[in-house]
Amino acid sequence: MNKVGTHIVVDAWQSPADLLNDPERIRRALLEAVEAGEATLIDMCVHQFSPHGVTATVTLAESHIAIHTWPEYGYFAADLFFCGRGKPEEAMKILRLALQAKEFKSQQIDRGFPGVRANTSLQGVA
Amino acid sequence: MNKVGTHIVVDAWQSPADLLNDPERIRRALLEAVEAGEATLIDMCVHQFSPHGVTATVTLAESHIAIHTWPEYGYFAADLFFCGRGKPEEAMKILRLALQAKEFKSQQIDRGFPGVRANTSLQGVA
Repeated sequence: MNKVGTHIVVDAWQSPADLLNDPERIRRALLEAVEAGEATLIDMCVHQFSPHGVTATVTLAESHIAIHTWPEYGYFAADLFFCGRGKPEEAMKILRLALQAKEFKSQQIDRGFPGVRANTSLQGVA
Repeated sequence: MNKVGTHIVVDAWQSPADLLNDPERIRRALLEAVEAGEATLIDMCVHQFSPHGVTATVTLAESHIAIHTWPEYGYFAADLFFCGRGKPEEAMKILRLALQAKEFKSQQIDRGFPGVRANTSLQGVA
């Protein structure tokens, strides 16, 4: 397999509802996660839903982080997709710590494609 | 399991490099995918890398879509995470069609948490 990135899929629960419903806390946690993951921020969108719930997407030079919270269930879903550089596990630890999830499930998916690398008509490929 | 959303993880290859390196084409494909998926757009970031490659994150009321392309390999990775409403499979078809991937692998992950729903201190929960 030609692996291009590591994707950590996180489901976490038993988090305090007030943390999961605090967009500024989540924004700070994401910025801390980007730093801990040694990633490069391109853009971030943090959105609060009514009556509750926060969703955020972080565009990185390394790919993305996304988080969606359900305060009413004490649950959040997070995705950390890092290509090449960066430390997605470290970023994940920050999110878990910041949102104080007592229960946590994560799986790692190697992203990429099988076989011989094709389509090399472009120049300047690393 | 208390399922809150469906996450489709896509790896696709043998796509034309010029499509994978065209941020406007990818932006249009994402907007078409949002419409086909009957989702609600909150925000979108489309970023072109130098010398090539495009990354995009789409924040939805239903969660998110993300896509990252490697034109030099004819490869793209896409994630379509939809909670509740929406048709992520339809959105996925649009992306595949728009980027003309000859090879395609997708897996569906049910997102959520086990056991009894806890933490119902918030009001107005559906």
